[in-house]
Amino acid sequence: MSGRLIGVGVGPGDPELMTLKAARLISEAAVVAYPAANGVSNRTRAIAGDLIAPSCIELPFSLPMKTGRDAAQAVYDTTADQISAHLSQKQNVVVLCEGDPLFFGSFMYLAARLGARFPVDVVPGITSVNAAAASLRSPLVARNESLAVVPATAETAEITAALQAHDTVAILKVGRHMAKIRGILAGLDLVADARFVADASGTSELACALDDAPDDPGYFSLILAFKGQDPWLN
Amino acid sequence: MSGRLIGVGVGPGDPELMTLKAARLISEAAVVAYPAANGVSNRTRAIAGDLIAPSCIELPFSLPMKTGRDAAQAVYDTTADQISAHLSQKQNVVVLCEGDPLFFGSFMYLAARLGARFPVDVVPGITSVNAAAASLRSPLVARNESLAVVPATAETAEITAALQAHDTVAILKVGRHMAKIRGILAGLDLVADARFVADASGTSELACALDDAPDDPGYFSLILAFKGQDPWLN
Repeated sequence: MSGRLIGVGVGPGDPELMTLKAARLISEAAVVAYPAANGVSNRTRAIAGDLIAPSCIELPFSLPMKTGRDAAQAVYDTTADQISAHLSQKQNVVVLCEGDPLFFGSFMYLAARLGARFPVDVVPGITSVNAAAASLRSPLVARNESLAVVPATAETAEITAALQAHDTVAILKVGRHMAKIRGILAGLDLVADARFVADASGTSELACALDDAPDDPGYFSLILAFKGQDPWLN
Repeated sequence: MSGRLIGVGVGPGDPELMTLKAARLISEAAVVAYPAANGVSNRTRAIAGDLIAPSCIELPFSLPMKTGRDAAQAVYDTTADQISAHLSQKQNVVVLCEGDPLFFGSFMYLAARLGARFPVDVVPGITSVNAAAASLRSPLVARNESLAVVPATAETAEITAALQAHDTVAILKVGRHMAKIRGILAGLDLVADARFVADASGTSELACALDDAPDDPGYFSLILAFKGQDPWLN
């Protein structure tokens, strides 16, 4: 008998877009862990807010955003050791995950280190893709349509192929890749129907036409490219 | 001033996977509408359950599953007229949507008929794709990986291309297309790593290897095909 590692999606930003199950598990938690990018205010912790009990042990882990993969892996190693100590003492540990635990993000690195020794549960969360579509009131997919989700860090050829093959494409983590993505969309004549969303559902949400988007948006931003659809509002 | 049309995602099946916002809006609603497939027990209404107040006006609309698009369009026309009568009387109408309102499903057809005359809000919901991955404890996407979502009704060539291009592919609405999908996956040597999930998170959930899946699953079933990933559990 050991504690359970529980990855809990807290959704895209609006605390009310957390599930009932996530809210319950967070409020019941005796130990929570969550990522905290160095020098960036803690988005994930902020979404959970007052649901975390004052008596709860908090294990924030600071991920280096720009110093490469090795440094991040060392942080995951250390954090997994900290979590392991609690799990071994038959204490459940809730890992807060922005969006969904299995849709990009940190939880998978911790589960990879702990999943062979401890039971793992996952509570899905609303992704930024679904939240962005809701803010835009733009259908993602209907009928026989298909959707692709591609990170902006992918090769130009891969992003281009996805845009050619699918009715709707969500391009995530735009950040400093904005110029590249704009160029790809322009080459396919898809700029006019493309939309930009930063901090979907959050306090600093920006949802607009791609032409009105900033040239250097943050990491938590995405572009939705639509083909052959007729959004009923916009 | 008129009422608002509010598409509310109730999530994939487990009532606890509804968002806090969905639960609040449903419990406050004076009028709710929801799809009810002819001859099928009402999944969407069941998820909302007791959140719907006894005094709430309910507008179920029965969609024909097999008699073609024209019959369904006539149902949407009639339902939109019913909803319009309430909206015109400054009454909000909450449309319950299984999963997410903008990710397949009925809401988009109603919004297309009403969105030009009435304000529309959308509350995103957990999709069956995220719920299935959580049940399987299988990462959907990490790092630079990409995801595609394709309905099983798509052409064989389109499904094949998606499987070749993306790290993870969710094939939705498997139903009577199981043999076709199995054949496609076998041709790409992807059967061993593929997983099947029916009624993700619901009371009759089945999550298993594709080889163990039924030959004729229902409509609410999907296959997750993984390439180049290393699920930490399974």
